[in-house]
Amino acid sequence: MKIFQKMNASIPREVRQTIRTSRWAGPTAGMAPGFVQANLVILPQDWAFDFLLFCQRNPRPCPLLEVTEPGDPEPRELAKGADLRTDLPLYRVYREGRLSEESTDIRGMWRDDLVSFLIGCSFTFESALMEESIPVRHVEMGVNVPMYVTTVPCRPAGRLRGPMVMSMRPIPAAMVARAVTATALFPAVHGAPLHVGEPKTIGIGDLSRPDYGDPVEIREGEVPVFWGCGVTPQAILMASGPPFAITHAPGHMFVSDKRNGEYAVF
Amino acid sequence: MKIFQKMNASIPREVRQTIRTSRWAGPTAGMAPGFVQANLVILPQDWAFDFLLFCQRNPRPCPLLEVTEPGDPEPRELAKGADLRTDLPLYRVYREGRLSEESTDIRGMWRDDLVSFLIGCSFTFESALMEESIPVRHVEMGVNVPMYVTTVPCRPAGRLRGPMVMSMRPIPAAMVARAVTATALFPAVHGAPLHVGEPKTIGIGDLSRPDYGDPVEIREGEVPVFWGCGVTPQAILMASGPPFAITHAPGHMFVSDKRNGEYAVF
Repeated sequence: MKIFQKMNASIPREVRQTIRTSRWAGPTAGMAPGFVQANLVILPQDWAFDFLLFCQRNPRPCPLLEVTEPGDPEPRELAKGADLRTDLPLYRVYREGRLSEESTDIRGMWRDDLVSFLIGCSFTFESALMEESIPVRHVEMGVNVPMYVTTVPCRPAGRLRGPMVMSMRPIPAAMVARAVTATALFPAVHGAPLHVGEPKTIGIGDLSRPDYGDPVEIREGEVPVFWGCGVTPQAILMASGPPFAITHAPGHMFVSDKRNGEYAVF
Repeated sequence: MKIFQKMNASIPREVRQTIRTSRWAGPTAGMAPGFVQANLVILPQDWAFDFLLFCQRNPRPCPLLEVTEPGDPEPRELAKGADLRTDLPLYRVYREGRLSEESTDIRGMWRDDLVSFLIGCSFTFESALMEESIPVRHVEMGVNVPMYVTTVPCRPAGRLRGPMVMSMRPIPAAMVARAVTATALFPAVHGAPLHVGEPKTIGIGDLSRPDYGDPVEIREGEVPVFWGCGVTPQAILMASGPPFAITHAPGHMFVSDKRNGEYAVF
């Protein structure tokens, strides 16, 4: 992959340090370009097997990059020395499946039985799309990607079940095939689209009203293309109601030391 | 992928039925060509999280295709109606990390807490190699692929640790790059090679003495190419010693209803 030139390997660490020490609480889009960012889900060990199995059964919305040992806040594979309790700008805490609070630091609620799951994020494959001059509308518009709760069910696992959330990018009809192959090369970060065109068949009545994120313009000759979305775990937590869970706040990702290119098939 | 034409979808079911009813105990190489075969590991629920995490951390030797619910012997994703207790020709039972017996039927030792793991098998990517006219020496010679216990450690997970086992295929130097890209398209069944040439650097002193399988001829101008191997879990079980485990006997795989092409990235 050509996307990944001349990047200073210390940049992600500096980003995490700034977030940690200044308690900066903004979104991470565009930070440490070229490096992998990740969604975060933290669950008690009692629920960890169900969630690990859920990810194995639903790799498109939930492509797992790393799972920590119980109680260990350091993601040793993605970023040695990082601390998942302080290094993301903003967290969400769920109790019994309901969003109970947001916080910039979760050290005070850390427990020895918490297992952290880091899940691939579409920022990686969007770099690959842009590298091929395929337009990414929400980036052009400077807004969040539109995300939709679909009628496609995830495959359940143990106590976890719920609908798949998909993100949508409008792609010029002549570039759809290229967008498929470019993203298929990144199965570790959602991979190829799950649905191309015909939003009604996955239960989306009005593209201008996404369930998460912002609406984007769809121009003449463009087709709505849908990818598995890392917000799916949050929909699953709300549908399944584990007693306690922590996630990143949407758009406020974990910035890792891995380069995007390391997750390409080739 | 072109590999997969005109295959009767009922063939795998007929193969499983024959194995089940006749208690046929031979190897499955060449049976139901074009359909995915799988390695099997069965563990008590108490060890299932460790093993699931082990597979997540070591996807090249242990690419997971399906994990069943505890106590359920039916692999609902890979083959509806199949029974993992009777539908493989030969099983191995491990107690405290030692091979204790082989059996053609494990219904008598089935328990409600057993979780089954189905792991991708190199038969799938060998079809892709042959489709590109890349020679597969052990198939030409009619023997088992040579497998080596390397000095490359797997990433540990919980109580599970041990060495990576790799299979070796000699590839003409001019075809090595093609062999890499052809197999990289199948990350769900071991994917790209882990090591090309220089066997000494992964602790292999003598290619003519594999730890499992049979030695194969390496001709002038050929390079030994190493892939992650589905026998790795058996080496891990022997190194880590869970109280009880069942696997397939090497070469005696589970024949699924999935076609090889379903596991290609594209």
